[in-house]
Amino acid sequence: MRKLSLNKAFMLLEPGPVVLVTTADKGKNNIMTISWHMVMDFTPRFALLTGPWNYSYKALIRTKSCVISIPTVDISKKVVGIGVCSGSDTDKFKKFDLTPVKAKSIDAPLIKECLANVECHVTDHIKKHDIFVLEAVHAWIDVNRKERRTIHANGDGTFVVDGRVLNYRRLMLPKLPPGV
Amino acid sequence: MRKLSLNKAFMLLEPGPVVLVTTADKGKNNIMTISWHMVMDFTPRFALLTGPWNYSYKALIRTKSCVISIPTVDISKKVVGIGVCSGSDTDKFKKFDLTPVKAKSIDAPLIKECLANVECHVTDHIKKHDIFVLEAVHAWIDVNRKERRTIHANGDGTFVVDGRVLNYRRLMLPKLPPGV
Repeated sequence: MRKLSLNKAFMLLEPGPVVLVTTADKGKNNIMTISWHMVMDFTPRFALLTGPWNYSYKALIRTKSCVISIPTVDISKKVVGIGVCSGSDTDKFKKFDLTPVKAKSIDAPLIKECLANVECHVTDHIKKHDIFVLEAVHAWIDVNRKERRTIHANGDGTFVVDGRVLNYRRLMLPKLPPGV
Repeated sequence: MRKLSLNKAFMLLEPGPVVLVTTADKGKNNIMTISWHMVMDFTPRFALLTGPWNYSYKALIRTKSCVISIPTVDISKKVVGIGVCSGSDTDKFKKFDLTPVKAKSIDAPLIKECLANVECHVTDHIKKHDIFVLEAVHAWIDVNRKERRTIHANGDGTFVVDGRVLNYRRLMLPKLPPGV
């Protein structure tokens, strides 16, 4: 994994893919699958919504940190599998044969098999809505990875894979944030 | 446009597409283009992040309502164009040749040329982060529309179009919300 400029890290979440979020609580790694996230700022900051029904919820509150990992279509079945079991009784890294990699600034691990990983601090927890505000501190990308297409949840158990790319850079140039 | 069950309306935003948000403030319709949204609940509730830099911001605060419209790839150039000009000096419905359609419960209009439209009340404004919490009250879908592929912003002026669909319904069945 090579370092990715923090200026560009919002680009990983802006398209709205399904992501994996890792936590490490009391020495125990866990992973959750989530689509309920949004970009909040180019710095970057992200919002994530989860609740007490989710085993990772307490880990986010207690450790105030997590890694957002971006999986691609080749591991989509694992991504779905991770979403339908619980860290309360499952070691998901082991069950889904994924490799935790030590992060630089936090305890939660990167996932080697993902396209990219973003180390985040939880800077706020809006209790009324269970929205977590994340501030990215380091971002990493696998520059050699061939499969780079992400997946998007439709909400009914089907997922749409990234298709072709449209280029409107010229039209958007005045509006683009620095460094992208 | 035919009525879409509110149970299914979250499915329009769950994949993270670029959406249009219409408002009507003091009799003036406006449209903004936005990717910074997320699903908050299946009921459905949505979060939307925007700020004072955006002309629609005051309209959201004052009128406490909006329509989320889902554009498809065939009108992607209009969607980008809407995002790079301001309602302060532009009638965007006129400029981009879009048709406002009267909503059922709110003043903000549906957009006829979009795949779907969701009428929403703003139920909360988290001032600290400028997150708007929206509760959907009616949803509409163009069942006859052939082009149904949405677009996703990469953040650098390029956009990825929906590609092929993966079906993991069987694996996810225990986790699916009612009615989808």
